Amino acid sequence: MSQIVNRRDLDFVMYEMLHVERLFSAKRYSAYDREAVTQIFDTAQAMAEEIFQPIAALVDAQEPDFVKGKAIVPPQTAQALHAFADAGFFALPFDEEAGGLQAPWFVHTAVGGMFTAANTSVTNYAFLTIAAANLLFEFGSEELKKRVLPRMLAGEWFGTMCLSEPQAGSSLADIRTTATDAGDGLYSIRGSKMWISGGDQDITDNIIHMVLARLPGGPPGTKGLSLFMVPKQQINDDGSMGASNNVRLAGLNHKLGQRGTTNCLLNFGEGGATLGYMIGEPNSGIECMFHMMNEARIGVGHASVMAALAGYLHSADYARNRLQGRRVDQRDPNSPQVPIVEHVDVRRMLMAQKSAVEGAQALCFYCAMLVDQLTVEPNAGRRADLTSLLGLLTPVVKAWPSEHCLEANKWAIQILGGYGYTNDHPVERLYRDNRLNHIHEGTFGIQGLDLLGRKVTADDGVTLNRLTAIIRATISEAANEPLLTEDRVDLTKLVDALEFTTETLLGCKDVALRTANATIYLDAFGHVVIGWLWLWQARIAAQALSNPLSDGERAFYEGKLRACRYFTRHQLPLAHARFDLCASLDDSCLSSCEADFG
Amino acid sequence: MSQIVNRRDLDFVMYEMLHVERLFSAKRYSAYDREAVTQIFDTAQAMAEEIFQPIAALVDAQEPDFVKGKAIVPPQTAQALHAFADAGFFALPFDEEAGGLQAPWFVHTAVGGMFTAANTSVTNYAFLTIAAANLLFEFGSEELKKRVLPRMLAGEWFGTMCLSEPQAGSSLADIRTTATDAGDGLYSIRGSKMWISGGDQDITDNIIHMVLARLPGGPPGTKGLSLFMVPKQQINDDGSMGASNNVRLAGLNHKLGQRGTTNCLLNFGEGGATLGYMIGEPNSGIECMFHMMNEARIGVGHASVMAALAGYLHSADYARNRLQGRRVDQRDPNSPQVPIVEHVDVRRMLMAQKSAVEGAQALCFYCAMLVDQLTVEPNAGRRADLTSLLGLLTPVVKAWPSEHCLEANKWAIQILGGYGYTNDHPVERLYRDNRLNHIHEGTFGIQGLDLLGRKVTADDGVTLNRLTAIIRATISEAANEPLLTEDRVDLTKLVDALEFTTETLLGCKDVALRTANATIYLDAFGHVVIGWLWLWQARIAAQALSNPLSDGERAFYEGKLRACRYFTRHQLPLAHARFDLCASLDDSCLSSCEADFG
Repeated sequence: MSQIVNRRDLDFVMYEMLHVERLFSAKRYSAYDREAVTQIFDTAQAMAEEIFQPIAALVDAQEPDFVKGKAIVPPQTAQALHAFADAGFFALPFDEEAGGLQAPWFVHTAVGGMFTAANTSVTNYAFLTIAAANLLFEFGSEELKKRVLPRMLAGEWFGTMCLSEPQAGSSLADIRTTATDAGDGLYSIRGSKMWISGGDQDITDNIIHMVLARLPGGPPGTKGLSLFMVPKQQINDDGSMGASNNVRLAGLNHKLGQRGTTNCLLNFGEGGATLGYMIGEPNSGIECMFHMMNEARIGVGHASVMAALAGYLHSADYARNRLQGRRVDQRDPNSPQVPIVEHVDVRRMLMAQKSAVEGAQALCFYCAMLVDQLTVEPNAGRRADLTSLLGLLTPVVKAWPSEHCLEANKWAIQILGGYGYTNDHPVERLYRDNRLNHIHEGTFGIQGLDLLGRKVTADDGVTLNRLTAIIRATISEAANEPLLTEDRVDLTKLVDALEFTTETLLGCKDVALRTANATIYLDAFGHVVIGWLWLWQARIAAQALSNPLSDGERAFYEGKLRACRYFTRHQLPLAHARFDLCASLDDSCLSSCEADFG
Repeated sequence: MSQIVNRRDLDFVMYEMLHVERLFSAKRYSAYDREAVTQIFDTAQAMAEEIFQPIAALVDAQEPDFVKGKAIVPPQTAQALHAFADAGFFALPFDEEAGGLQAPWFVHTAVGGMFTAANTSVTNYAFLTIAAANLLFEFGSEELKKRVLPRMLAGEWFGTMCLSEPQAGSSLADIRTTATDAGDGLYSIRGSKMWISGGDQDITDNIIHMVLARLPGGPPGTKGLSLFMVPKQQINDDGSMGASNNVRLAGLNHKLGQRGTTNCLLNFGEGGATLGYMIGEPNSGIECMFHMMNEARIGVGHASVMAALAGYLHSADYARNRLQGRRVDQRDPNSPQVPIVEHVDVRRMLMAQKSAVEGAQALCFYCAMLVDQLTVEPNAGRRADLTSLLGLLTPVVKAWPSEHCLEANKWAIQILGGYGYTNDHPVERLYRDNRLNHIHEGTFGIQGLDLLGRKVTADDGVTLNRLTAIIRATISEAANEPLLTEDRVDLTKLVDALEFTTETLLGCKDVALRTANATIYLDAFGHVVIGWLWLWQARIAAQALSNPLSDGERAFYEGKLRACRYFTRHQLPLAHARFDLCASLDDSCLSSCEADFG
């Protein structure tokens, strides 16, 4: 069985739950149908399993080297990414007019997921390139696009996102890198950028950095940031590479995980001019970035789910095959040892993983589908609705998996016991890899402030009300399934708690007190969303089970029912406790002070 | 400020809370008083900070090498342990008659804690040696003790515990290593032992393995296990070292953390006879091991607390010094950035750490004090009471920190953001190191079964009732502190929930159903215990605050009140949810099956 993807579950989410086939009728996606998508998935799975997965341990063990000012990575990284490029996967989500394959975002997401589960470190280079190319496509001049995009979509040149600086990690308002007019439509870029994944490597001849910098005399804070395309090597008018653009690799970070991806401190404009091209309008850098934000944050959440999926599949396989001990009601030491899946606590740890992974995966695809619906929706009003719904769910899809799918990775290690603690198995690496997802693209705390402080309050709860109406509709649809009564009743109570809590918080005019427990609000909010997606899955499963089924299909749907029930009983009550805390306007952290930790 | 110990808090727990000075009046500990203990702590802290802490990153990065059948560790490991030995710390807890310093166990625990916080990998060698020497002291013949103990107490020879085997990790009943009579009081040992920490190293000339093995014809299961002392090099009658004893290093495990401690697969009796000495009676190996179990499990719990303490102290220091962003009610980008401790979510993460670390540390010392009380208690009835109370708390002190102090390490990383994810700071290493504590010395699941399946049910809840009476006494003592009304009321409700849940579980005669959520019961049980210890600490703090105090002292006690309140509000409700689940006799995991994870 594959340890990077559960194709049956993927099909279930896409075609039985979300009915993504409806998108194929849009003109934009008319080249796609289920068969074509299945073929793409087959290709991706085979490549991920045969080329990416086998080198995951290697690129983890052989960290990038800093040699003579350059980052050197194991040659297998380049080989894998060349195969990825040859299959056209860099071009997958791009418009045909840009030379792309114009696939729906959910297809790109699923394909990327398989590679991420197999080897997140190597896959990162591709996703960063696609993100940078996407910015260029959206906001770059036709001239620049013509010169650079084809190289990126062919995987010849990679891309990066250069936002953070040493003194301004999460606080983009404090970015200091400057851009000054250098004539000929060029800008001279000076400053240091920190945490740049793929910031240097020896895989591609050129690297296209997307850099936030400040024009002289602009407004302070994020409103004064502009976006620049800064190539590692200058690019001549004919598209060929020119001289060094003086982007200096100042150091490599040595990380807990995702070690196969270089992570760099870059200095721009050191030892010579670094020239960049403005992308978009002056002082619109943050807006350009926000255009990419939803997709990027779905991507991080999905990467977290994929790390957990790989751990879940591996530990489930182990639990079925590892013999140890006996059931609690069988203590005869002469009886044979049983597979550890027979121990109820091992099944608890598998259920914890399954409910987090398959619940959060459904959320990722739901959001990816919203991205696609948004792309093809002609009606402005409906587009606005989709935009706000996606915006509301974005902090959830980014943050909930990075907390609860990391927890899943913890349980995967635990099932393997001592073996799980060694690098003979991938679960410890997956745990390390996944720890990053809680931090980058906006920390857990920042997502909480985004959700409560911005998304929920911005329209005074209107979008949230639309979401809860959607959730209540799913609850209603499940009303005629007696198997689901408990799950339905309990989810209803939790939606009530979400609404009551939100009302209480919105009624609090002290912004510091209102947002004091925003992270906890986000966590519980995520439970509502995941609980909803579980009830949705369970409803489909219950319906399917009323028909004759093969043993395998019956087991599949029964597993969905049980995971839903697990989530209802084990997880929803924790969210109630968290909502109660938020609704009490608890100030136990707000009223604490530095001296408490002295 | 120290990043391995909070001496003020240590004093608080020992002298204001537990009044360990009462032990000094026992004849056994008459050489000790507060001043002497303080001097020992000063010495330990200085050595831990100056010798152990500076090499923690090094021994993590330079994993032990397997060279020509031997494990090679960085020479700094030996240097640190020689200093530890020279200071007499190997001998600290041993009886004077054995050449020890006869210190109370809590002193040994506190001293070990500082070294563990500084560098758990190197400290492990010492603790394993002390554990092995303890077994030898308790159960070895006078002749053997005379030959071997002085070497171990001087740190010249190290020791190990050889329990697990590749096919029998947690299931000791399935141990296959055999011991056959080889004449002259010797036994020939054959078999493989897995996960042996310190199983080989190039620090000491000899290694004393304590090995569980099976005599021919004995009963099956754990009742047929005997304990043997198996030296790496044979020991001559005069105590000098003889020839190789054919203990073969078959491989080193490459671990997520605690990398400076070798972890070995050892083969006994391969390529020649391996000779061992029986320790204790035939077929009493498990009883001998259980003699050490409480101390060993307190040790693991305490190690987990220490990893979290080091992370907490480091992240608190970082939060006070790292400038980033602005308060939510101050958005002017021209205003200066603030230390991140000003962000309420950072304080939440510090509170989460503080409440777990200082709560669990109090539990470790409470248990260590019980060990000492047990040692000096002349009355058999009171000894029996202390034994059962300690037995009840042992799975809690082992398991609760390994879950919640690991979580604390997660938050330490989060506070440092990207920096926390790099090895420029110790927090990622502490997180990796701490992950082991959930696994070794009995996994989380096994501790749950020990607590509910054995300790609580064995005497039908009598010892538990004694514990809840102790907790209710603390609640009563807090009754005249109006500041603590909320904490007192909420803890009372949780104790009620514990009692109700336990009664329900004990009333369930289906052992599989009763223990199906034993792990979750343990988790919530731990919250009762930690909640109790917090109320206890808060009561002392509230009383202290009624007197005139220096600013520093006032801040110390106010921090205790706030952490108690945090634990009451943020953590106790989660335990309620978990007790409710257990009391419902939830079968959502019990009724699941292998095919659900297919």
